[in-house]
Amino acid sequence: MSKLFMFEKPQGMRDTLPELYQLKTQVKSAVAEEMRLWGYENVETPTVEFNETVGAASAILDQQLFKLLDQEGNTLVLRPDMTAPIARIAGSTLKNVKRPLRLTYDAPVFRAQQYEGGKPAEFEQVGVELIGDESSSADAEVISLMISSLQKAEVTSYQIAIGHVGFVNALLKEVLGNEERAQEFRRYLYEKNYVGFRKAVDELPLSSLDKRRLHELLRLKGGKDIVEKAEKLTESEAGKKALEQLQKLLHILEDYNMSDRVLIDLNLVMHMSYYTGTVFEAYSEGLGYPLGGGGRYDQLLAQFHHAEPATGFGLRVDRLTEALGKAKQKVKKDTCIIFSSERRKEAMDEAKKQRTEARSVVMQEITGIEDVDAYSKQFEDVIYYIGSNGNGGAGDEQ
Amino acid sequence: MSKLFMFEKPQGMRDTLPELYQLKTQVKSAVAEEMRLWGYENVETPTVEFNETVGAASAILDQQLFKLLDQEGNTLVLRPDMTAPIARIAGSTLKNVKRPLRLTYDAPVFRAQQYEGGKPAEFEQVGVELIGDESSSADAEVISLMISSLQKAEVTSYQIAIGHVGFVNALLKEVLGNEERAQEFRRYLYEKNYVGFRKAVDELPLSSLDKRRLHELLRLKGGKDIVEKAEKLTESEAGKKALEQLQKLLHILEDYNMSDRVLIDLNLVMHMSYYTGTVFEAYSEGLGYPLGGGGRYDQLLAQFHHAEPATGFGLRVDRLTEALGKAKQKVKKDTCIIFSSERRKEAMDEAKKQRTEARSVVMQEITGIEDVDAYSKQFEDVIYYIGSNGNGGAGDEQ
Repeated sequence: MSKLFMFEKPQGMRDTLPELYQLKTQVKSAVAEEMRLWGYENVETPTVEFNETVGAASAILDQQLFKLLDQEGNTLVLRPDMTAPIARIAGSTLKNVKRPLRLTYDAPVFRAQQYEGGKPAEFEQVGVELIGDESSSADAEVISLMISSLQKAEVTSYQIAIGHVGFVNALLKEVLGNEERAQEFRRYLYEKNYVGFRKAVDELPLSSLDKRRLHELLRLKGGKDIVEKAEKLTESEAGKKALEQLQKLLHILEDYNMSDRVLIDLNLVMHMSYYTGTVFEAYSEGLGYPLGGGGRYDQLLAQFHHAEPATGFGLRVDRLTEALGKAKQKVKKDTCIIFSSERRKEAMDEAKKQRTEARSVVMQEITGIEDVDAYSKQFEDVIYYIGSNGNGGAGDEQ
Repeated sequence: MSKLFMFEKPQGMRDTLPELYQLKTQVKSAVAEEMRLWGYENVETPTVEFNETVGAASAILDQQLFKLLDQEGNTLVLRPDMTAPIARIAGSTLKNVKRPLRLTYDAPVFRAQQYEGGKPAEFEQVGVELIGDESSSADAEVISLMISSLQKAEVTSYQIAIGHVGFVNALLKEVLGNEERAQEFRRYLYEKNYVGFRKAVDELPLSSLDKRRLHELLRLKGGKDIVEKAEKLTESEAGKKALEQLQKLLHILEDYNMSDRVLIDLNLVMHMSYYTGTVFEAYSEGLGYPLGGGGRYDQLLAQFHHAEPATGFGLRVDRLTEALGKAKQKVKKDTCIIFSSERRKEAMDEAKKQRTEARSVVMQEITGIEDVDAYSKQFEDVIYYIGSNGNGGAGDEQ
């Protein structure tokens, strides 16, 4: 622990300056408006929750949680995601509202960073949760809404990878027999460590047929035909049911003209432990990490004593602005009125007029500026009301 | 430490449900737009800061800070206000931007609550900071902007109390001679404990003239004439200068037609220890606590190695919505299209059409609803696309 400089920020914490803020606001309002149009309603939850409830349900790794203590000795966490807090509300305050429930949020979430990796420890997520509908129709709705939100945010080059955790789980169980081994292979998939996966397969005492089935799993990425290929690998009812759901989902996305951007990726295993069915992620060309993702979580609500199916997604606002790429050229501010005190009233009248026309107007008494030229350069228009020209006429425009 | 219920939230933490969210959003956008029109630019700062830097500068009582540790053993705090973080940015990243600097923010701040007092531990503040201008013109600008923001938020019955910490400090120093005693009397004023103040005055070994001066201080509340009354109490240059500034400020507010709602209150001592000059608070009739407040803090920036004068204010979003009083009647949602899968496409086309008209449309497959009548009641319009009526015509409207 060394003496800190006054301007230092904790690891992974960032400031947002006016230019980026403006771009963020544009992106967020476009996405929020689309969510409103699809009938989703906004909720907000506290930044701080109990570790024992929302922290435990969130399924973010324990070492990634920001923890603190309250005065009764309970451990608190800065919310690591929004799905668990919304499940808490859905299972309590909103438990009597008719289902399906469509909720949306826009909030910062927190993930403690272990090392100087340049990763943000706080980032904003905007997303939806569709609670109480187990149909493929609900899955298709949230995927379509994610696509539609990306379009409205003017993200142009993106793709959606769709997988099914139920299929992966079923296949691993069929071949490996026990959950512990399945967990090991799921971790390889989550880490996208395909070399490790293959090596582990080869070292297992399995029939050559079973080994081939696992090797084949790694190839299940591509177009619609992937579902048929997958059907040949699974014999269990759970596996077949998962693929039926996926097939149905794809048909609906075609009906919605939303299938252009969609790829199948049956290796997709999300980091959140609560997903049970369809999962999906959005990628943008040129970004090395997903813009966001989501999926079905049919067991989470039971933890909040209100068992019901649910699906949803979250998009990362920081990555959306990054994907937009246009680091927004510094635009000049609208108008500055520079005045001396005897002409304050005229200056105020002019400011009022321009503000009613939605122009942003800085009113600045000249005695408050050190270097008028340098200061004025920030503005598109500069108007002067200086000296005792009391005739109330227009100022001297620069 | 007892076992928690799954739906519990930490002390003082709240959820915001859709109806209140909507009202909050209206208030916030009205205020944000006014701040933009006055030429203020948005910044965001992290939720978590170092205790040693922003925590120490913030001047919120230590026991009100939410504290946690990072991996190097530094103490972190959830930001207790926005003025100190903005001073950090102004003194570092933005130190080369031409002054005056006009910044605005809208962010949650955190104050740990000791007891079950019903006070929020997290609340949203929207405010501005005007940095690098020491003139009364700058003070008048932020007060006018606060008034203007309250008007745009449609808060109708409010008043602004204006005081001057410099005057109070000067008078206390003149009469009491030392800073320790002055601090005691400032605390009485801050706590609005006038009985305690009077008793302490009477117990001091002061001349009867000096005692009268302190008793008179408590009467310095009212209209413009208060400034003249105050002038009779102070002999020091600091005291006279403070009153000159106040007088000038009042003249400017008159020029701006902003003086109707203004009262003088020379007992006003804000809880933030960094205020140095003009201070002000906004009150709403019927609310027992201020909507917000602010003032001049000419010493704070020096702590961030960039000494310069500054002034600003913050409004509490929770209290603005409370002052508006209209607990927003539950309005019905726009449209729900209930469809069966064979008519999904028609339903989607209708949804698209209405959404381009800015109506919010829930598309709901009928199999996902348990009780269609109860569910439909939430909407203004319900349209059905049910059964195999494949002629593509309009749905059956309810």
